[in-house]
Amino acid sequence: MILTVTLNTALDITYRVRSLRPHASHRVTDVTERPGGKGVNVARVLAALGHEVTVTGFTGGATGQVVQRQLAGVRGVADALVPVAGATRRTIAVMDELTGDTTQLNEPGPTVTPAEWAEFQETYEGLLASASAVALCGSLPPGVAVGAYGGLVRTARAAGVPVLLDTGGEPLRRGVAARPDLVKPNAEELAELTGSHDPVRATQDTRRRGARCVVASLGPDGLLAVTPEGRWRAAPPTRLRGNPTGAGDSAVAGLLSGLVEQLPWPDRLARAVALSAATVLAPVAGEFDREAYDELVGRVTVTGEISAA
Amino acid sequence: MILTVTLNTALDITYRVRSLRPHASHRVTDVTERPGGKGVNVARVLAALGHEVTVTGFTGGATGQVVQRQLAGVRGVADALVPVAGATRRTIAVMDELTGDTTQLNEPGPTVTPAEWAEFQETYEGLLASASAVALCGSLPPGVAVGAYGGLVRTARAAGVPVLLDTGGEPLRRGVAARPDLVKPNAEELAELTGSHDPVRATQDTRRRGARCVVASLGPDGLLAVTPEGRWRAAPPTRLRGNPTGAGDSAVAGLLSGLVEQLPWPDRLARAVALSAATVLAPVAGEFDREAYDELVGRVTVTGEISAA
Repeated sequence: MILTVTLNTALDITYRVRSLRPHASHRVTDVTERPGGKGVNVARVLAALGHEVTVTGFTGGATGQVVQRQLAGVRGVADALVPVAGATRRTIAVMDELTGDTTQLNEPGPTVTPAEWAEFQETYEGLLASASAVALCGSLPPGVAVGAYGGLVRTARAAGVPVLLDTGGEPLRRGVAARPDLVKPNAEELAELTGSHDPVRATQDTRRRGARCVVASLGPDGLLAVTPEGRWRAAPPTRLRGNPTGAGDSAVAGLLSGLVEQLPWPDRLARAVALSAATVLAPVAGEFDREAYDELVGRVTVTGEISAA
Repeated sequence: MILTVTLNTALDITYRVRSLRPHASHRVTDVTERPGGKGVNVARVLAALGHEVTVTGFTGGATGQVVQRQLAGVRGVADALVPVAGATRRTIAVMDELTGDTTQLNEPGPTVTPAEWAEFQETYEGLLASASAVALCGSLPPGVAVGAYGGLVRTARAAGVPVLLDTGGEPLRRGVAARPDLVKPNAEELAELTGSHDPVRATQDTRRRGARCVVASLGPDGLLAVTPEGRWRAAPPTRLRGNPTGAGDSAVAGLLSGLVEQLPWPDRLARAVALSAATVLAPVAGEFDREAYDELVGRVTVTGEISAA
């Protein structure tokens, strides 16, 4: 199976309102809820691609129960979340009916105790024994040390399991130093890590900092991959209009499934770009449009060169 | 016991953010949750005044469970909520740290089926048998007929239980026609019901429409009462600064406790105004400041005349 880790799982709630105005009262006309957090989103896409996936991380409180109940209904996804005393956070996306613009409110998440962290590490190590790859995704909840991803990367490497890291800020910096197989920063995370706004330079610098492969997501421009096997750019056939929520998570699922299936890099990148694009085009934020994916995957432009090594 | 009915109970969530900006992403720095809905707020204040209170209405889903778990911890309040298949709504108050201004997002609430409504009516009738008074409070959830309060007022009157109605719009109009003992509209509800922005005229008109007594809440100007026994105005000693959330519910608790204790009208009104003011002054929205109440209750100005009848 593929393992995804979401230390700060969430109940993603979407509210529709006519138009959000600060300091006014609003009637919410529609409410939807689904399990969230980057690793959970990645797992859902991997399962839709036919992979067996296990999700771990933390769950707690009434929101954690809702997350777990809803996850139980997702075919192909096994729940190995570790219980904590605190409550799983909510994220609220308030969507204006008139414009489609979204205002985001993110709770901080439960404070994880040292004992809970130790229990998670034990669960994680146990799950790695039967994992073909692992993705470490998203922000850290309160109480988890900023260097936590570094430790989880090292544990995966010691177990011989390829490890992908998708996070930002100091957790990314510390995680990269532990030599993950792949990181997938976006342009902003890349610039914050390296100080450079030139994606090519910043991507190369990220490799020097420890990542074996770097795939930078450049929004509508697609992906830039720098690996020991070569460098590539992959871009969707046209500019897409839609909701980019979850597009990065779909790209991670594309890269991870391609890794496990041992696809050549250009095919992995084409899949990741097509999944991202099909997510932007889907009517529901964070879902991907299967038909759009099937149609787009053959039309992604991949250009690059294989290393002389 | 005193019975309070909250057909659209809520889990009231308060978020602190630095400053709410539409279409931006916000880190919530503090989250608090408490059982809400007007009748639940009234019950909490009545219990703090030493009355035994029973709350009824509907509860459902994960949010309903949280509401019930928290209610179980409130001394003096008994839970007689009726389970429904839908989920109890959340209300979210987003408070700007910089200014204290609040943006409100209110979910619509569960859709109540005819069978669930029938079950509620049976529960309500049963509870009236041991009630000294009943308050019908707040908005109606989807599925409940707009004339529902009219029926509940008639049932209470048939059982010989004094009934207070605190709602707005069409539910108020229909409820008033069923001849409740007391309604407590605010200036806006009063104007909507009668078409008049003159509180005295509008209050008299509301009596003509069927209410035995009308106590209009006029915000910082206090209360205006028109009853068969006489008319009064009651005002706090000074203009108060603070959060008016829940001030109307505290006034209802003051009026209802005064009715059950058979206090003269001026004392009921003084209590209602002092509770309202002590709620505005409390640091936590919807709570009342006991010391402020004790200090204010003797300083409320009540002026008026007793009817010649």
